[in-house]
Amino acid sequence: MSSNHLTEYCDASPPVRAVFDDIMRTRQVEQVNNFWKCLAAHPPTLQRIWESLKEIMAPGALDPLTKELIYVAVSVTNNCPYCIASHTAAARKAGMTDAMFGELQAVVGMANETNRLANGYRVPLDDGFKLE
Amino acid sequence: MSSNHLTEYCDASPPVRAVFDDIMRTRQVEQVNNFWKCLAAHPPTLQRIWESLKEIMAPGALDPLTKELIYVAVSVTNNCPYCIASHTAAARKAGMTDAMFGELQAVVGMANETNRLANGYRVPLDDGFKLE
Amino acid sequence: MSSNHLTEYCDASPPVRAVFDDIMRTRQVEQVNNFWKCLAAHPPTLQRIWESLKEIMAPGALDPLTKELIYVAVSVTNNCPYCIASHTAAARKAGMTDAMFGELQAVVGMANETNRLANGYRVPLDDGFKLE
Amino acid sequence: MSSNHLTEYCDASPPVRAVFDDIMRTRQVEQVNNFWKCLAAHPPTLQRIWESLKEIMAPGALDPLTKELIYVAVSVTNNCPYCIASHTAAARKAGMTDAMFGELQAVVGMANETNRLANGYRVPLDDGFKLE
Amino acid sequence: MSSNHLTEYCDASPPVRAVFDDIMRTRQVEQVNNFWKCLAAHPPTLQRIWESLKEIMAPGALDPLTKELIYVAVSVTNNCPYCIASHTAAARKAGMTDAMFGELQAVVGMANETNRLANGYRVPLDDGFKLE
Amino acid sequence: MSSNHLTEYCDASPPVRAVFDDIMRTRQVEQVNNFWKCLAAHPPTLQRIWESLKEIMAPGALDPLTKELIYVAVSVTNNCPYCIASHTAAARKAGMTDAMFGELQAVVGMANETNRLANGYRVPLDDGFKLE
Repeated sequence: MSSNHLTEYCDASPPVRAVFDDIMRTRQVEQVNNFWKCLAAHPPTLQRIWESLKEIMAPGALDPLTKELIYVAVSVTNNCPYCIASHTAAARKAGMTDAMFGELQAVVGMANETNRLANGYRVPLDDGFKLE
Repeated sequence: MSSNHLTEYCDASPPVRAVFDDIMRTRQVEQVNNFWKCLAAHPPTLQRIWESLKEIMAPGALDPLTKELIYVAVSVTNNCPYCIASHTAAARKAGMTDAMFGELQAVVGMANETNRLANGYRVPLDDGFKLE
Repeated sequence: MSSNHLTEYCDASPPVRAVFDDIMRTRQVEQVNNFWKCLAAHPPTLQRIWESLKEIMAPGALDPLTKELIYVAVSVTNNCPYCIASHTAAARKAGMTDAMFGELQAVVGMANETNRLANGYRVPLDDGFKLE
Repeated sequence: MSSNHLTEYCDASPPVRAVFDDIMRTRQVEQVNNFWKCLAAHPPTLQRIWESLKEIMAPGALDPLTKELIYVAVSVTNNCPYCIASHTAAARKAGMTDAMFGELQAVVGMANETNRLANGYRVPLDDGFKLE
Repeated sequence: MSSNHLTEYCDASPPVRAVFDDIMRTRQVEQVNNFWKCLAAHPPTLQRIWESLKEIMAPGALDPLTKELIYVAVSVTNNCPYCIASHTAAARKAGMTDAMFGELQAVVGMANETNRLANGYRVPLDDGFKLE
Repeated sequence: MSSNHLTEYCDASPPVRAVFDDIMRTRQVEQVNNFWKCLAAHPPTLQRIWESLKEIMAPGALDPLTKELIYVAVSVTNNCPYCIASHTAAARKAGMTDAMFGELQAVVGMANETNRLANGYRVPLDDGFKLE
């Protein structure tokens, strides 16, 4: 099996189908993305990642849109093209407007810049930021 | 001058003082952080970074707390200890609760994990995510 | 010369040919990969990288398969698509099964996640892990 | 609660204690590391990460030492000082010798180098590495 | 508007056109790159980034070629394919020869390698490198 | 042997001493840095890294100061505190002034920012940047 084999629903084993069914039901979509079709090659990973994501991305102290914005911020910083594409789409679906998208990218860019200025200038920690 | 010389207010030139004054006024604090005291070694950078940050972090389509959460997410992904410390403090000040902090870290950790799974499995882009 | 010019064997200078010959002999293949054809644009780099890789990837305290798994782990973490493709192929050739591939990706994903949790929670070093 | 509060066993709630007990039993140690004491601030994360790690790091198609070597490789690439310290210690415990440690670092260093050469030279994917 | 919409000059608003005009005049080119056409979706970012870049990349204590070499080094380390392509082209235009390109990549590769060796061996800071 | 054992000259084996001698002679210093004392734990790595660095950092198409600036740029982007400290010192020794240091950090910060903007906006490659 090549490392990026896509398992389609019709060819999936019962445990893989059960995860696919839960993804489609939870997200109210009619097909799972390629990400899940690839992970299906290793069912324990498919199940663990889906269970983790379902728990983490559910509404909580942070709302789903904020969580998707954070997901995009990490994916852009790591430059994962697949994740940038899929989570930007998910953020749009959760309500991200063009203006929010523009501000998100501005903050992400700025944070990546000042992270390096702090490194390069070897800025010493202020007393107020020190761990007790 | 060593690369992490801290310029104190009393020793600062008038243009550096003007930036320090604006930081203290805008943030309503009585002292600027070490980050700014280090950048003062190169006044054009001090001024440009402050002007950029002031514009980007102001309330807009995204509120200040959401922007700080995004800033922490990037800093944690890049592992910039200074930025993690200072922006976690800023997020707390902007209203981040313990529960929000816990969910933020959970999303950041998960995004870093699935970014690598997408890379490692070489997941092909779904047609719906492709650029026109 | 464009930065990704591919030097083919028939057009290569004698010192470049000598490296290509050694690669093909050592790896028992009939052609060198594009990576080497690109590096040939700077012969000292071609020679140094090949000599280093040959020494480092040879069987030693770690066997060749383990070394390839480590190579994939780094390449996935950095998201180098060329290196992920070529070293996943090399790991397969060295004996990586589908099950090993699945577990490798799971460990890499998890490590990337816990690296960020350690950063974000600013976990202090346990006494037992401190340097003398 | 500060973001790096360490929850000690004696102060832990019953669900946190249950995870701590399972960690100590599984690893046959008398205390959990600071990593777990920090995660205890967010019990769902503590439980999820421990369950995931326990499943992923168990012997499978890859043995525990190989998994720890991969964990160190990722942690070194990301420069997470806490994770480098704790997983190097874990790898030693799982049987990593000085010679293995030396070869591990050599492979990690080399992979980080050739990842950038592949990026910088914009090496095109060989036909044999392309996805179907 | 999709996230990578390209704003062409003929469709641009007056403030966006003013930035495009300044880019073309400063760089003496007849068209702006796709990077700027994308940023035009968020005019404050377009303007801020262009003003910052114009100031930073102008001749100063470092000449323009050296600045472009540094830009390529960062882009290769982060693996940003667009930035590697565009700044390698800019460096060529500023005078980078084939030999310089080869040495640049060699230094970047080596730095990425020794960065990880320093991490992995947990090298303690020499007294002479410590901050006062 | 702990992973960061420092091998002092007086305790070094003849082949390690030979490398230490060559470092001190080439750099005209009276002691080697901790980096080399750590690598001495694995003599083949010590020798290979030193031979590579000596070759790469020698004057060529790029002068030694430019090479050190590039080394700092990579180390800041990766946030390797040891390497930032040691290569900033080396760059100072090779002639880097305060003004050059300030411009270097400004370029590094900006490149890290625009790398993410290019990622986040998913900027398509201009025809002129495409590989033949």
